[in-house]
Amino acid sequence: MKTFDLMTYIEAKRARVDAALEELLPLTDGPSLPVFQAMRYSVMAGGKRVRPILLMAGAEAVGGDPGPLMPFACAIECVHTYSLIHDDLPAMDDDDLRRGRPTCHKAYGEAVAILAGDGLLTLAFELIMNPAHMKKIPPDAFRLAVYRLARAAGVHGMVGGQTADILMENREIDGETLSYIHTRKTGALISACVEIGAILGGGQREQVEALVRYGDALGLAFQVKDDLLDVEGDPRITGKSSGSDEKSHKATYPALYGIENTRQRARDLLDQALLSLRDFDHLADPLRAIASFVVEREY
Amino acid sequence: MKTFDLMTYIEAKRARVDAALEELLPLTDGPSLPVFQAMRYSVMAGGKRVRPILLMAGAEAVGGDPGPLMPFACAIECVHTYSLIHDDLPAMDDDDLRRGRPTCHKAYGEAVAILAGDGLLTLAFELIMNPAHMKKIPPDAFRLAVYRLARAAGVHGMVGGQTADILMENREIDGETLSYIHTRKTGALISACVEIGAILGGGQREQVEALVRYGDALGLAFQVKDDLLDVEGDPRITGKSSGSDEKSHKATYPALYGIENTRQRARDLLDQALLSLRDFDHLADPLRAIASFVVEREY
Repeated sequence: MKTFDLMTYIEAKRARVDAALEELLPLTDGPSLPVFQAMRYSVMAGGKRVRPILLMAGAEAVGGDPGPLMPFACAIECVHTYSLIHDDLPAMDDDDLRRGRPTCHKAYGEAVAILAGDGLLTLAFELIMNPAHMKKIPPDAFRLAVYRLARAAGVHGMVGGQTADILMENREIDGETLSYIHTRKTGALISACVEIGAILGGGQREQVEALVRYGDALGLAFQVKDDLLDVEGDPRITGKSSGSDEKSHKATYPALYGIENTRQRARDLLDQALLSLRDFDHLADPLRAIASFVVEREY
Repeated sequence: MKTFDLMTYIEAKRARVDAALEELLPLTDGPSLPVFQAMRYSVMAGGKRVRPILLMAGAEAVGGDPGPLMPFACAIECVHTYSLIHDDLPAMDDDDLRRGRPTCHKAYGEAVAILAGDGLLTLAFELIMNPAHMKKIPPDAFRLAVYRLARAAGVHGMVGGQTADILMENREIDGETLSYIHTRKTGALISACVEIGAILGGGQREQVEALVRYGDALGLAFQVKDDLLDVEGDPRITGKSSGSDEKSHKATYPALYGIENTRQRARDLLDQALLSLRDFDHLADPLRAIASFVVEREY
């Protein structure tokens, strides 16, 4: 039996997501407006498409066909990109560069960047709700999936997490607040991707619940590992200067618990993620490989 | 027969929308975050609830019960409020006051205002998609209605209109561009309200189409009348200094076509709106009265 090759899997999926995004991103229907270009500029900036891939892997794990779910997968990438655009704004993290290119507001100005973010968040729901897309999903499952996305993106998820993160800059932070930020700012959407894939893929209730546990562990592991890489990662590999979180006075796991405890925490979360997949067969191998990769990566 | 009393109708509906918003706006689920207060501050700032009322009146016109549609009506008010918060930002229209109170970013700072807008836009879809709400709407109608909202709010609607409006400040504008801005910036959402009410209220296809024509005329009439009031309105009644659009170099209908043509255009749009309701019975009286009011109001 051939072992599962994660990199081949990811590359194939990513190429399909990129092609679908290229097609689904809107073109102007009137005067040439920079907001259309700004949306495309940020979405097509070479993202790893982690979230769409997780959605598809979640559907596959329960035996579903991920093909028809592509508009939903692309919608989640739009939500993710909108959050990056708004997080980078001068009033927020004030970043000039993202993935080596000028951030959206540096390239298009602040007003257009705000509108491009607004446009992408709205486009996500436009893509999902378009009656021409995903016609065969049972209505109850469909509705629940969209609700989970909105919930993960909103004030109880990403928006709340980003608010807490910004307010806590330059302030002493306790474990409870750090956990609030971690679970909401990035964890909520990552977990929702796997859950949504499982729901739309036709998963049974216990399967969906198991995949939510997997997603929660994965989302946290992702964040904890990011914090670790920031402290001990090789800047030539991670692409950012080491200790940059500390310099911008961002709350991190190692700052609060120390490096060795953080490493252990990442390993524990990986174990937890894998354990949640115990009752799944080889169809969950992509999810298993992704979890290991997230914790063992060097960038 | 008693004539229809619009003010009583509006007051009753507005009180119900306010009560529902009070209940549906989220409370924090963790640390006390100003984004929750900021969302509430802007939504509960004394809006006239024109859009939720139009949704309910649209449902009534086709014989539907507007009661169960309240979460959708509130969602549309969230979308409207988010757009006001973001339009007021320093990078956009840079307004310090709205309805006589400090704008959201003046009260809570720019970062929280951006996040409050993002939170409200997302909350709209959370309220609509919540499986506990609006259970009896047929899935196809439900999906179409949500799609119309997303489409009206997105780059082909409000976001596109606002982009064009901002880019055109201090520039010569032609009739085509002005029409693009008018139909998208405010017209799209107003028209979508009536259409969504008709769809969710169980309207037949021809009824929905007629109400879309009504909504398009109403949305434009609303904008044209706003422009007129800005030029010739009594500042003591309109609450803004007359000629304020001209001072901020905003494109307006009277600036392009003259005051008399603008008055005639408003009357024509009212005729068009009323004509679209020709085949409707007394259940469309609220919509008829609203159209007359929009064009004849002094504020």
